[in-house]
Amino acid sequence: MKNLRTIIALLLLCTVRVSAQQISSPSVSEGMGIRPTLSVGLLKSPQPTSREHRLMPVPAAIKFQAGRLKIDASFTVATEGHREARLEAAIHRVARRLEGRTGFTFSREQVSDSKSATLLIECLGPGSAVPSVREDESYSLDVSPERAVMKAATVVGALRGLETFLQLLEADRGGYFIPAVSIQDKPRFQWRGLLIDVARHYEPVEVLKRNLDAMAAVKLNVLHWHLTEDQGFRVETRGFPRLHEMGSDGLYYTQDQIREVIAYARDRGIRVMPEFDMPGHATSWLVGHPELGSAPGPYTIERKAGIFEPAFDPTREELYKFLEGFFKEMVTLFPDEYIHIGGDENEGHQWTKNEKIQAFMKEKGIKDNHALQAYFNQRLSKIIQKLGKKMIGWDEILHPDLPQSTVIHSWRGPKSLAEAARKGYDGVLSSGYYIDLIFPTREHYKVDPIASDSDLTAEELKHILGGEATMWGEWVSPETIDSRIWPRTAAIAERFWSPREVTDVDDMYRRLDAISIQLEELGLTHEKNVDMMLRRLARTKEIGPLKTLVSLVEPVKGYNRNQAGIDTMLTPLTRLIDAARPDSQAARRFGLLVDRMLSDAPHFRRNHDRIRMTLSEWRDVRPALDVMIDGSPVLHEARQLPHDLSEIGTAGLEALAYLAADMAPPEGWREARMAMLEEAAKPKARVEFAMIGSVRKLIILAAEMANLKSIPHSQWKDRVLTLSEEKSR
Amino acid sequence: MKNLRTIIALLLLCTVRVSAQQISSPSVSEGMGIRPTLSVGLLKSPQPTSREHRLMPVPAAIKFQAGRLKIDASFTVATEGHREARLEAAIHRVARRLEGRTGFTFSREQVSDSKSATLLIECLGPGSAVPSVREDESYSLDVSPERAVMKAATVVGALRGLETFLQLLEADRGGYFIPAVSIQDKPRFQWRGLLIDVARHYEPVEVLKRNLDAMAAVKLNVLHWHLTEDQGFRVETRGFPRLHEMGSDGLYYTQDQIREVIAYARDRGIRVMPEFDMPGHATSWLVGHPELGSAPGPYTIERKAGIFEPAFDPTREELYKFLEGFFKEMVTLFPDEYIHIGGDENEGHQWTKNEKIQAFMKEKGIKDNHALQAYFNQRLSKIIQKLGKKMIGWDEILHPDLPQSTVIHSWRGPKSLAEAARKGYDGVLSSGYYIDLIFPTREHYKVDPIASDSDLTAEELKHILGGEATMWGEWVSPETIDSRIWPRTAAIAERFWSPREVTDVDDMYRRLDAISIQLEELGLTHEKNVDMMLRRLARTKEIGPLKTLVSLVEPVKGYNRNQAGIDTMLTPLTRLIDAARPDSQAARRFGLLVDRMLSDAPHFRRNHDRIRMTLSEWRDVRPALDVMIDGSPVLHEARQLPHDLSEIGTAGLEALAYLAADMAPPEGWREARMAMLEEAAKPKARVEFAMIGSVRKLIILAAEMANLKSIPHSQWKDRVLTLSEEKSR
Repeated sequence: MKNLRTIIALLLLCTVRVSAQQISSPSVSEGMGIRPTLSVGLLKSPQPTSREHRLMPVPAAIKFQAGRLKIDASFTVATEGHREARLEAAIHRVARRLEGRTGFTFSREQVSDSKSATLLIECLGPGSAVPSVREDESYSLDVSPERAVMKAATVVGALRGLETFLQLLEADRGGYFIPAVSIQDKPRFQWRGLLIDVARHYEPVEVLKRNLDAMAAVKLNVLHWHLTEDQGFRVETRGFPRLHEMGSDGLYYTQDQIREVIAYARDRGIRVMPEFDMPGHATSWLVGHPELGSAPGPYTIERKAGIFEPAFDPTREELYKFLEGFFKEMVTLFPDEYIHIGGDENEGHQWTKNEKIQAFMKEKGIKDNHALQAYFNQRLSKIIQKLGKKMIGWDEILHPDLPQSTVIHSWRGPKSLAEAARKGYDGVLSSGYYIDLIFPTREHYKVDPIASDSDLTAEELKHILGGEATMWGEWVSPETIDSRIWPRTAAIAERFWSPREVTDVDDMYRRLDAISIQLEELGLTHEKNVDMMLRRLARTKEIGPLKTLVSLVEPVKGYNRNQAGIDTMLTPLTRLIDAARPDSQAARRFGLLVDRMLSDAPHFRRNHDRIRMTLSEWRDVRPALDVMIDGSPVLHEARQLPHDLSEIGTAGLEALAYLAADMAPPEGWREARMAMLEEAAKPKARVEFAMIGSVRKLIILAAEMANLKSIPHSQWKDRVLTLSEEKSR
Repeated sequence: MKNLRTIIALLLLCTVRVSAQQISSPSVSEGMGIRPTLSVGLLKSPQPTSREHRLMPVPAAIKFQAGRLKIDASFTVATEGHREARLEAAIHRVARRLEGRTGFTFSREQVSDSKSATLLIECLGPGSAVPSVREDESYSLDVSPERAVMKAATVVGALRGLETFLQLLEADRGGYFIPAVSIQDKPRFQWRGLLIDVARHYEPVEVLKRNLDAMAAVKLNVLHWHLTEDQGFRVETRGFPRLHEMGSDGLYYTQDQIREVIAYARDRGIRVMPEFDMPGHATSWLVGHPELGSAPGPYTIERKAGIFEPAFDPTREELYKFLEGFFKEMVTLFPDEYIHIGGDENEGHQWTKNEKIQAFMKEKGIKDNHALQAYFNQRLSKIIQKLGKKMIGWDEILHPDLPQSTVIHSWRGPKSLAEAARKGYDGVLSSGYYIDLIFPTREHYKVDPIASDSDLTAEELKHILGGEATMWGEWVSPETIDSRIWPRTAAIAERFWSPREVTDVDDMYRRLDAISIQLEELGLTHEKNVDMMLRRLARTKEIGPLKTLVSLVEPVKGYNRNQAGIDTMLTPLTRLIDAARPDSQAARRFGLLVDRMLSDAPHFRRNHDRIRMTLSEWRDVRPALDVMIDGSPVLHEARQLPHDLSEIGTAGLEALAYLAADMAPPEGWREARMAMLEEAAKPKARVEFAMIGSVRKLIILAAEMANLKSIPHSQWKDRVLTLSEEKSR
């Protein structure tokens, strides 16, 4: 995905600042209230609802009514209509989660009269035997003070509704309750996926299971299992044991484990689509089968990140025989309708260097490497069709000779997808959802699979099936992968499920904070592993100062970690960059405090004390951090950070003092502080401070005080906002 | 274990106060230094070593030398002598953990010249094919500035040495290193176990695996797998499928999983001994096989905690046929030399009520239920002997007719064990190591399998094989079990491994704090799940105030949770009592601060400010806690706690003020405050404050100021210590 790197990086660089809309927002809650979930974000909701809720994804239609359904120890669930083990198991899991949150012990007895149950589920049928892209996932949920009634055409619809029901749980001093509400819900897109790359770093079955639970919680329905790569081949193959035996360092899934994961996913209404990336990204295949390669070999498992030359030799008939045998075994293992064949980033260097391949191309009139890959894809497509499956691959595979059942998976963007749709091909978008690149949630959230200026016809639009977040595996371990996927992917899940008009960023973050905690009950470690990693780094339980630092930094973004060339697939992912997380919540909250204060021009009183305390903490944490870093060699690379943090804090305090005193800073102050910020903004230990933009605003504004004085107070607020927007870019 | 409950509870009630020795200790570090592990505890070590270390268990003999072996990216390991996959895998795991701590990426290449390796392991042989109670676990480790050389007779010895090597890792601003040292090590007892009861609450395989890793880290060598109970039957049996199908709620281990756990344990040099508890504690067997019971049934899986009537009918020949078939299958699954048959707490109520059984007893001249159980045990013993296994069971089974190969597992205490030893039976101690009872580490630490006044001969002493910590499963879930086992069990492991003279409690705690963090790298959740549970309870990430409260409370101890009768096996274990942990570290540290201040009589200056800040925090956290509890119904039961905490803080601050001002408090003050403490000491929400003893000391001493003034200053210190000892009891 090298090209994508540049595209995304450029795209995002223009937009990472906080938008003017956020600054002017009049309804940012100041937090510390009784209901902690209100502490950040807008009180208004983008939906025509009568009250705030914490649902993610937002349902297609929701209407709150007066009253509440009490949830207490007498809670029961009954079903009418279709019954089956999958539904019973889901009800059991939801009841246990509800017990876990509320502390109640519900009766395990069957309800004798289903009408008397707290929650009645009326389900019409089982849905597809194998989860399908055509699954009916719709449901309705009506909650009155007497009871809740859910209706769904399929068990999968009921599963989706059950997650909504759980998210509706609220509490106050009167107890737990579900607000009276009427919900009609169905997904906007039928393909809502998460790619997990288990090839670059292996992830044990338990990691996949807890992520499947999290996917179900936010109504994702495709696990795209990226199983093979230059760096690893992760599937046990009975017919070709050299593949997993020689290509995996012993880290592969047994066929029993694969069946276990697929059954686990099916129980949650989730498809499991395998990807076998070819003809490039295939070094690990060639370790045991060098004869398939376009150069003689020998090959070893690739340890670095990047794009590598090894590729299958598409001119050899033996290759197709091999692949036919291989896929014949794989289709017995993977019941999904689709097989992903990758097809990306093959640059054909081995092909160019191979005389036999060149002769073959000349003979067949194949004009370049791209055309040779198209030839390979057509051959592959026939094998896959013959086995009764549909083929899906990345943008590069699009070619007029491929059957219309082929699906285009786009890392190029909505336009590439639209082009495929016009040609009659189904498409799935991943451009803009590359969560491995560590960009903030709001950036992913605003990407829509259908461009806002799309001119596709209604018929063509049907080809846009949905999208997938991609968890590429270069820099994730079982310890850190959850924190790279969650909670950001919940917002992407909302993009795929909710009406396109659901776009309010502040409201998204408010709900995301609530969802993030709920995901923990499923065993997700995105939150709890951070402190654990800091304890290991600092060799003590007393990690307070380090926590302050790490909460304010984010790992370097885009492909900067790859390009640094320091880390390989064998590097322990236990350093500061690994403990740091994307989209710093602390920086975001600080930004909201600052914006709120600025909107309080000309007084700048609002939040003043909280901002001052925060800045003082940054300034003062340095000695403790210095000592901690000094005593822990793995942290030595971070030696500059406490110094920078202290300087940032000091500069912010100065700005705050000028603002509070209504006094202009001296000549040169602004330039000196901006230069300091520029230095501090440079990554160290491959992490970067996430709150520098907010401090920059404070400095610019303090420096503008003299000019501000010449205009009427009533105009300050607008002027301040304009300035902070202009200057902080 | 009902009797045990009373014994232990009484035993411990007398001793939970901090001892005088601890108070007078002159060398408690005041912390906050560069080396965080020194922040609490004694600087002296109980071993004749030349420097402080963080080893647990302490080796049999250790001698530090001058110099250090640098650990950097060039670290390599080589082996000489015996080589095998188990050793290679262990070296691989240790290298990865070392990488995780240091951030280095070590070479994966084989070392060409073993003499040039950083660590050379000379291993003579493989050890037992199946881990054995007679395994030679000894090793020596010599570290010089040039390299480390480990020697071991068996692979298991090398595994033990590798864990010591990892624990030796230290760091300072110069980098990571192992201090030069010479260690000769071997265990004091050959049976060092942890019982995990997976019957009352099922624990998934991953929970067992991470606990096996932790056991290996502290050199425990027996997983006592308590597999059957009134509340659940957890083993897949091919011959008798009704056992697991009807007795487990679907929560049982498949035979593949059992083999997986046993192999995992063997890789770590750990025996896996299964327990099938009978003839009592067997309700779950009778659900599918009521014909084995002493009453007609039907039976259902027991949901409560306690002792229940159902028991096998020992008068029926079919029972023995059944058991022979059952054990015949089990011995193919469990390779260990021993089978644990439980045999505890059968009160024989069903036998007494059953006329047929009464007639049988009369006919055979069996005088009482105890004798009938002895009859059953003899029959059972023959079956187990015939299958080539040795039988082990709880105290009750001891009977002259049992073969001398039978092992007595004692919940009654060292005396019971000594009695068995005199009769020629091997014994294993668990009395005093009941970690489910939530007593502090120091209480378990001081229990020795051999009484200090033991008069056993050398030959008889050989029968004392060791001990086992027991994690009974009434109140643990996969989320909380680690926090009930660790870190306390590390101190028990030291009791079983280290020389009996290693008894310094403060030094144990100092090392325990370090080990606790290291256990986290193995995936243990005892530390990280606490905050996660608090986030769920409070429904927010901002858990600061709740964390302050929970760090100071402990779950009710002994059998108080059972006796409350509120919770069953179906209760969600997600309440405050479940988030709270045994042996509050915060309370312990506060106690050390107070003791240190008291030892500074008559000035009481030392730690004054830190104690005042802590007490002020307790006093002031109340409003935030009140609001948090009010908004979260599951916390309503804890409403009184913030009030109590605030009162405790206020009383402590008053005492501190009197002490600082050298002024006597007014009439009635002492009585009022002591009465308040007595109320505050009562459990609420089934947790209790752990720092009340320390505050009581402050109050007593403040109240004695007037009397103290009449004696010379030079005598204050002794007087203060005496008083605090006398009055705080």
